[in-house]
Amino acid sequence: MLLPIDPQRTIRELKELRALTSDQDGAQRVAWTPMWLQARDWFTSKLAGLPIEDHYDAAGNRWITLRGKSEKALLLGSHIDSVPNGGWLDGALGLMAALETLRAFAALPDGPPLTIRVVDFADEEGARFGRSVLGSSAFAGTHSITQDRIKRDKDGITMEAALQTCGINIERFPEAERERTNAAAYLELHIEQGPILERMGLPLAAVLGTKGVERHKITFMGQEAHAGSTPMSARRDAFAAAARFALAVRDIARRTPEAVCTTGSVKTYPGIATAIAGRCEMTLDQRHLNAAVLAGIHQQARDASTDIATDEGCTVEWDRIWNIEPVPFHPHLIDLCGEAIRDVTAAATFERLPSGPLHDAAEVSRAGIPAVMLFVQSLGGISHNKIEDTREEHLELAIQAYAALAEKTAAWILLDA
Amino acid sequence: MLLPIDPQRTIRELKELRALTSDQDGAQRVAWTPMWLQARDWFTSKLAGLPIEDHYDAAGNRWITLRGKSEKALLLGSHIDSVPNGGWLDGALGLMAALETLRAFAALPDGPPLTIRVVDFADEEGARFGRSVLGSSAFAGTHSITQDRIKRDKDGITMEAALQTCGINIERFPEAERERTNAAAYLELHIEQGPILERMGLPLAAVLGTKGVERHKITFMGQEAHAGSTPMSARRDAFAAAARFALAVRDIARRTPEAVCTTGSVKTYPGIATAIAGRCEMTLDQRHLNAAVLAGIHQQARDASTDIATDEGCTVEWDRIWNIEPVPFHPHLIDLCGEAIRDVTAAATFERLPSGPLHDAAEVSRAGIPAVMLFVQSLGGISHNKIEDTREEHLELAIQAYAALAEKTAAWILLDA
Repeated sequence: MLLPIDPQRTIRELKELRALTSDQDGAQRVAWTPMWLQARDWFTSKLAGLPIEDHYDAAGNRWITLRGKSEKALLLGSHIDSVPNGGWLDGALGLMAALETLRAFAALPDGPPLTIRVVDFADEEGARFGRSVLGSSAFAGTHSITQDRIKRDKDGITMEAALQTCGINIERFPEAERERTNAAAYLELHIEQGPILERMGLPLAAVLGTKGVERHKITFMGQEAHAGSTPMSARRDAFAAAARFALAVRDIARRTPEAVCTTGSVKTYPGIATAIAGRCEMTLDQRHLNAAVLAGIHQQARDASTDIATDEGCTVEWDRIWNIEPVPFHPHLIDLCGEAIRDVTAAATFERLPSGPLHDAAEVSRAGIPAVMLFVQSLGGISHNKIEDTREEHLELAIQAYAALAEKTAAWILLDA
Repeated sequence: MLLPIDPQRTIRELKELRALTSDQDGAQRVAWTPMWLQARDWFTSKLAGLPIEDHYDAAGNRWITLRGKSEKALLLGSHIDSVPNGGWLDGALGLMAALETLRAFAALPDGPPLTIRVVDFADEEGARFGRSVLGSSAFAGTHSITQDRIKRDKDGITMEAALQTCGINIERFPEAERERTNAAAYLELHIEQGPILERMGLPLAAVLGTKGVERHKITFMGQEAHAGSTPMSARRDAFAAAARFALAVRDIARRTPEAVCTTGSVKTYPGIATAIAGRCEMTLDQRHLNAAVLAGIHQQARDASTDIATDEGCTVEWDRIWNIEPVPFHPHLIDLCGEAIRDVTAAATFERLPSGPLHDAAEVSRAGIPAVMLFVQSLGGISHNKIEDTREEHLELAIQAYAALAEKTAAWILLDA
């Protein structure tokens, strides 16, 4: 078996999608918006003539099924939604490479040896309601309907209402779990969204898994006071405490290999030039592939916040925004991914990276389905931005490696039977 | 001459004003709003029966003139406007103590030996348009009409339009300078708005002058990047640079006696938990009574920002929001203020403090008129807040000391003639 893929076709299609669903600020395929539905309609046009079955599950995930000799299904997927002002590759590259691979299986002279299913997961980004991997969590049975249905977008519209507009009843999310029937493995191609491969001069890597995340809102409380009349020695400056904490957290991350810690949102109150901040709210996002290490750096951050608050005459409160455990990918699929990379790059070895960003593959993996991801280099490590890009020769290599991985995985599934 | 004042009357009047112009969040006498006009109408009711002339100048400052034997005028003043959710004493205490002192001069058996003028300066706080000491700057000829007229409030209304509603044509501000004729000295009583007197256990202090202010917006620019996929070593985090800068500026202030430096407003962009801040905007407010020292700590802050930005792979830009030089008060009036404090407190010495907050007295002083201020203790150092307060016995002492200062100053003016 040698899959007859055409990477250039995929690149052309990605450019077509970009032209259709971007404005001067980048891609605008935000889930549960008209532009997202338009992107999905465009995807329909790419299915013409294929011997497939096409349906949406109860969570709005789209399933394209090519029946093969075996009922066992190889799932190939990603997402077509984007963040606002996003890039052309995040999500869409994986979906179009999956479609190209399905086409190649469909074109095999003897027909596909097993069932191939392409999935376009709904609302991976969580851009509108702050709840990422929504569709794949329904598929995996890890949904959180009660908390999610009441989430509101910036216009005050609830998630439940927005989904209803797209014909989705959030109550019925659990029915999406039916799609797990016969699923034997899941493969996802994605841009790295970070600078590591570019720094190493490598086009591709096998992904070890997705890092666990602890995401919290942290509030330091001091005493609002007049900037002109309050001596330095009499201040209880909530922002000074927050600044020290941000730097302490950075030190914690720097001395912990593979850890990342980010204080991305910082707000001071009353937030005027002439008043010492009485309150400072900030977010902390901590990630690591090892659950014990993540718990360790999380505790270190909590301890640092208390010590600093005390030292500054302030108090501190923590509120969990969200968390997820680390999700390791399937060891044998990681090896197959490495073989595929070596095949197309003619390199002797291959790189294994953890993924800092969360992906649908993590939810699929949590459902017990063997999964792995393939990363392709991101120029400048930039993503979620209109300048997000990848060298065209790297895109070609990535699509070839992905098809090779699908071929190896299909063989593994069939041998394993 | 011994001025027959009634401090309890002043306290009663201040409570009456509070009841009339506050809600559950505090005083709401914001300049150029109906509540401010209502406060001024209430003030009119307190003038009944006094042998005075009452008019508004071209900048909306109100002048109550009690003619005396000499045309030389002793100016007694403050402001009746407040910040939103303000306190009952900031501004109003000074104005009502001035009125009580004028009443006492009016009641002297031989009539006032010189002209006494009470001034209620318009818009000291700058709460609505971000331009403080507006009325007194028109009086002093230090106005900035071109920049100010186009300033907008949060509803988009220009200062020029708001003043027009109150019958003030901003073009005619320079006519307010006419009020300087015969002005021989200016005296202002104000709450400290800081914690120093409370910490020293003292009720009153003579004010040395108002500190100079350098107020800037500082923008650090790094690289927005994904919180999950960007290793610590690859980050150019604009907020980390800002945090280091805030702490460096604090160190500069701490090692410079009498200096204060405040980073009160901090905003990160894009300002989300999952992105490293590509940009961080913050304000820096630096104050000192000595111009050379202020220039020195300002240069140190600029140098620190550049060093830190370079070290963090970021860039930094400075934009001046506003600045004013230090304004020392009149040395002999400071001494007279000290004598008045000693008279009413029976203490052997008196405290001299610089004022961190700006006051109308600084503008009067810049016009070349000898001026001084008297500070009374603020409980907890709190101001611009509904809990702003001062012990009633301290208010009494303050009003007595202010009248004694007026008496001494009148004698000095007449001797000086």
